[in-house]
Amino acid sequence: MKIKLAITTIGSLLLLGTANAQEAAITATEVADQTSDVKFIIDNLWILISAALVFIMHLGFSALESGLCQKKNVVNVLFKNVFIICMGIVTYYLIGFNTHYPGEFNGFMQFGGMAGYDAVNAAANETKAYADYTYWADFIFQAMFAATAATIVSGAVAERVKLSSFMIFSTILVAIAYPIAGSWHWGGGFLAEAGFYDFAGSTVVHMFGGFAALAAVIILGARKGKYTKDGTKPILPHSLPLATIGAFLLFFGWFGFNGGSVLSADPASVALVFTTTSLGAAGGGLGAILISWALLKKPDLSMALNGLLAGLVSITAGPDVITVPCSLIVGFIGGCIVVLSVIFFDKVKIDDPVGAVSVHGIVGIWGTIALAIPIFNGGNEDVSMIAQLKGIASVGAFAFAFSLIVFLILKFTIGVRVSEEEEEEGLDVAEHGVDAYNG
Amino acid sequence: MKIKLAITTIGSLLLLGTANAQEAAITATEVADQTSDVKFIIDNLWILISAALVFIMHLGFSALESGLCQKKNVVNVLFKNVFIICMGIVTYYLIGFNTHYPGEFNGFMQFGGMAGYDAVNAAANETKAYADYTYWADFIFQAMFAATAATIVSGAVAERVKLSSFMIFSTILVAIAYPIAGSWHWGGGFLAEAGFYDFAGSTVVHMFGGFAALAAVIILGARKGKYTKDGTKPILPHSLPLATIGAFLLFFGWFGFNGGSVLSADPASVALVFTTTSLGAAGGGLGAILISWALLKKPDLSMALNGLLAGLVSITAGPDVITVPCSLIVGFIGGCIVVLSVIFFDKVKIDDPVGAVSVHGIVGIWGTIALAIPIFNGGNEDVSMIAQLKGIASVGAFAFAFSLIVFLILKFTIGVRVSEEEEEEGLDVAEHGVDAYNG
Amino acid sequence: MKIKLAITTIGSLLLLGTANAQEAAITATEVADQTSDVKFIIDNLWILISAALVFIMHLGFSALESGLCQKKNVVNVLFKNVFIICMGIVTYYLIGFNTHYPGEFNGFMQFGGMAGYDAVNAAANETKAYADYTYWADFIFQAMFAATAATIVSGAVAERVKLSSFMIFSTILVAIAYPIAGSWHWGGGFLAEAGFYDFAGSTVVHMFGGFAALAAVIILGARKGKYTKDGTKPILPHSLPLATIGAFLLFFGWFGFNGGSVLSADPASVALVFTTTSLGAAGGGLGAILISWALLKKPDLSMALNGLLAGLVSITAGPDVITVPCSLIVGFIGGCIVVLSVIFFDKVKIDDPVGAVSVHGIVGIWGTIALAIPIFNGGNEDVSMIAQLKGIASVGAFAFAFSLIVFLILKFTIGVRVSEEEEEEGLDVAEHGVDAYNG
Repeated sequence: MKIKLAITTIGSLLLLGTANAQEAAITATEVADQTSDVKFIIDNLWILISAALVFIMHLGFSALESGLCQKKNVVNVLFKNVFIICMGIVTYYLIGFNTHYPGEFNGFMQFGGMAGYDAVNAAANETKAYADYTYWADFIFQAMFAATAATIVSGAVAERVKLSSFMIFSTILVAIAYPIAGSWHWGGGFLAEAGFYDFAGSTVVHMFGGFAALAAVIILGARKGKYTKDGTKPILPHSLPLATIGAFLLFFGWFGFNGGSVLSADPASVALVFTTTSLGAAGGGLGAILISWALLKKPDLSMALNGLLAGLVSITAGPDVITVPCSLIVGFIGGCIVVLSVIFFDKVKIDDPVGAVSVHGIVGIWGTIALAIPIFNGGNEDVSMIAQLKGIASVGAFAFAFSLIVFLILKFTIGVRVSEEEEEEGLDVAEHGVDAYNG
Repeated sequence: MKIKLAITTIGSLLLLGTANAQEAAITATEVADQTSDVKFIIDNLWILISAALVFIMHLGFSALESGLCQKKNVVNVLFKNVFIICMGIVTYYLIGFNTHYPGEFNGFMQFGGMAGYDAVNAAANETKAYADYTYWADFIFQAMFAATAATIVSGAVAERVKLSSFMIFSTILVAIAYPIAGSWHWGGGFLAEAGFYDFAGSTVVHMFGGFAALAAVIILGARKGKYTKDGTKPILPHSLPLATIGAFLLFFGWFGFNGGSVLSADPASVALVFTTTSLGAAGGGLGAILISWALLKKPDLSMALNGLLAGLVSITAGPDVITVPCSLIVGFIGGCIVVLSVIFFDKVKIDDPVGAVSVHGIVGIWGTIALAIPIFNGGNEDVSMIAQLKGIASVGAFAFAFSLIVFLILKFTIGVRVSEEEEEEGLDVAEHGVDAYNG
Repeated sequence: MKIKLAITTIGSLLLLGTANAQEAAITATEVADQTSDVKFIIDNLWILISAALVFIMHLGFSALESGLCQKKNVVNVLFKNVFIICMGIVTYYLIGFNTHYPGEFNGFMQFGGMAGYDAVNAAANETKAYADYTYWADFIFQAMFAATAATIVSGAVAERVKLSSFMIFSTILVAIAYPIAGSWHWGGGFLAEAGFYDFAGSTVVHMFGGFAALAAVIILGARKGKYTKDGTKPILPHSLPLATIGAFLLFFGWFGFNGGSVLSADPASVALVFTTTSLGAAGGGLGAILISWALLKKPDLSMALNGLLAGLVSITAGPDVITVPCSLIVGFIGGCIVVLSVIFFDKVKIDDPVGAVSVHGIVGIWGTIALAIPIFNGGNEDVSMIAQLKGIASVGAFAFAFSLIVFLILKFTIGVRVSEEEEEEGLDVAEHGVDAYNG
């Protein structure tokens, strides 16, 4: 209403001038300013709607992970996810945002203070901090991304991790490691300078989470009774409807994850991103259905869901530059890879109850590399394979090493795993004193 | 950012001119162009957000259908729905979109090629393919609609259909039959010329799906033990919370289904559509609650949910032209009809576990006809009853016949129904080797 | 499309004029009008998207309340919620909207007629009824809020209220009491004149619902077996995954509840509101986790979920004026309060199965008061403590008294509580003749 009045006032003032023909004419610059102000409103709104969509991915993760776990560990998984989203938003506010986007820095690391309070961000409370959106729109959109990394780990370590240790671990990961790795690329660090291309975070979000998860599950070890002398015993998901709700909500939220990463409502870009994201997911679902049916001789719902997500992770590195037919192919291959990867990790006895290392880690690599392969990127010659490999190697190694060190320290201090009795009884009763389902 | 710079550049260039008073003045045409560019961004964004909302309807259908089924068939229902959304997007890309919108054609049928690749759509990768949105925004919005038809059938044939046959059937339905029927109306075919009015697809989406479902369930036959010598045995829904989640998500997604069908963010139209859609749904819910309570002597949750959906289907033919009070009445009657229709189909022993034929087929007819009845359309004289009946008859007959033929061919080749043992055991274990709930 | 053509036409007409240099120039007023038209489209669209988001809160409430109840009362809770959203939209249309926003009135109460039909709202069907949105956009956004009050009561009285009595009670509450109380503040009544500040309804929606619930549960009494001679017996939630889905969806919908209450897409305001709302929720979750862990010696998921919601309610009084760090603190304290409040009500044997009185009533007071305490409102000196207390006292007293009277009348006529046998058996079978879960 204030703006409305302002415009009307300007209008009225200038109206007075219309008597003198020449003064009345508005200049192109003035018009361009007004047009740009209105464009700004749309772009900013899209970033905010995208933030809400990325937020709902946390419900997606909660439902997917708890659905794929055993009935006795559901409360624990849900509690971790509620904690993660709260802790993620708060730590990103306190330290993450300004570490993620440090401004001028050495390209490797620089800790920032609270969002909106340091000198660099003097414009924090002004309307137009950036070309297309406000400071707080940028903050909240990025904050919703931040907790994702910890959520990915949460699924992989489920059913045997000690709650307090996980809470400490995930806080350190989200507050420190995630924004540091992100600053290399999105913060203008050394990967940005190397020409690394990762549009919405196939590497710096998903693969980061996947490799942090890999280190954690290696230290943690497999769930009791999973790998026995008599071979691998499948531990069945307690609720496939819950897992399906999760996968669909993740797909839904991904429209904000990728679509919002355009960082404006540019019609051609956002429409292309929606299309390549959807075709990537659909290709991933079909790829996983096909290959799992061929290999496992049964149409497997869990694999289909992981295929959907794998298609989405595959396309996340470049949904804005890939061609439409290539998005379908890249997603389809991602869906095939995830099935093979899940089988592989089970072979080498690395126990990941929800397939998080495969979906986010391995497929994240695929999506990032695919963008540098001419046949898969639709002829885009701007993405260099060297730069992509550099990004994968540095982010993957950092996530793995950071997670390994923190988890090892926790292991030799407060411990990272519940006792055998607690694991047998289930974490819900052991840690929370309550069952997920009663009556 | 690119656009922003462009505007600034134009601004700067013209700024130079301000010294010479007359050159500085911007013309009305130039301003109109800038205004129209910004409007385009908003309209396009709304189409895309609507696509995401229609996408979530597929989770709605998954939850509703699996919730209303027996516990032993839940994985099967969910798997079909995951397959349908993947297959739907892909086939719509490969053939559906250009069959749906064939451009100049004989008015009855013309197969198209891949989206974005044929001569007609040379503008595919340009920003402004249409007046209000880009080519890919149009594509992805329509793609999300396409799979709906198959999903409707999915619910009706649940609990006894053979998975592979259903996958073949639904692929043919979505890839070929749906876009052909749609082209008659939305593609500028013979129904469009006849003046048929169906805003967001009461007939060409919902009734189409409902009648395809009707043919399928007639061939398939009822579930074992439903209609016995001792009368009709109700087969109870395995999870009413899941079904309720589904119905609410369908209502939520319908804001995109109807609201996005305005094909722009025109304030008066979209606001009216949101209002009539909501009042239609609310009326449908109340109508179904009232009449089912009167007839069945119990407040029935399943009927209330079907009433909500019936209200939504009722209003979908003309949420943009109906008056607000009429939307409430039309929805209310739709809610009453669905209860009577469900009871009727049970009487004639046509077994439809989720009531899809009633909700989408029968109520689809009601919504389409209501729009031509003065007392229900708020005095709109532009909609002709003849045209409406022509649309209902041709789309209904085509959907029914197409589905009948394909299902019959499948029946006499690979079979359409699981064995009695498999039905007894449940499709989850028989077809997928896994239970939906474990532990 | 019509608008598009209009613009082009204007453009063309003026283009003719460009030959005569001076006529060609567009005036500032004309440009301002075009700019304001486009702004209007965005603002209106955001109100509508927000309406859809607030709608999904009703699924959030349905899932949260049914998840926290016993298995035998789930259908009843869901049925009530489906009824509430239908009834809420319809009564708001028939009487609520024009009672809520009566225009010139005595400041205390004036009943209105149907939306869109009385003289005051002659502009109902025009495009621009208000500065930033259309008449029907305003209606549908507010309609989605209206049913919230009844939903809050629904959770508190769950598991023993008589269905028909609740339906009558909630209809009267939503149709009459809610819009009257709202008119005092949002309708320009005596609280608006007193300078009462309540941005999105911490008091006039949440506390209103919480105090109506308090009166209802006092009359209704506790569930059988909750408070025994041997102390308080916890009645366990039947499905914590369902409750978690509910809490996350409420958080998601709150972006529309608070964000849409900006009543435009103003970039600085909406972005700030998203940020303070998210930090409030995150703070509330952490506060509740911390204090409940300390007091109950277990990390409690239900308390964490109530903490999230308490954070959201806390911030709802002033998400647009509070500073970002204060939003975190206010939410955190809200999360602590809700835990203490839930424990307190159990101590005084007021039985509220979902903690609705605490979350919405008590925390609603906190949020409204906090805004007048300098240390918590970020130095905003415009909010007067007197006015805030006046708002709390009048809305709280009215909600409590109204609910008390209506509930008492119902108690002494048709009764408000099911029989002991029905309560024992569960309302699902007793009232609806069906179980929530079968097979």
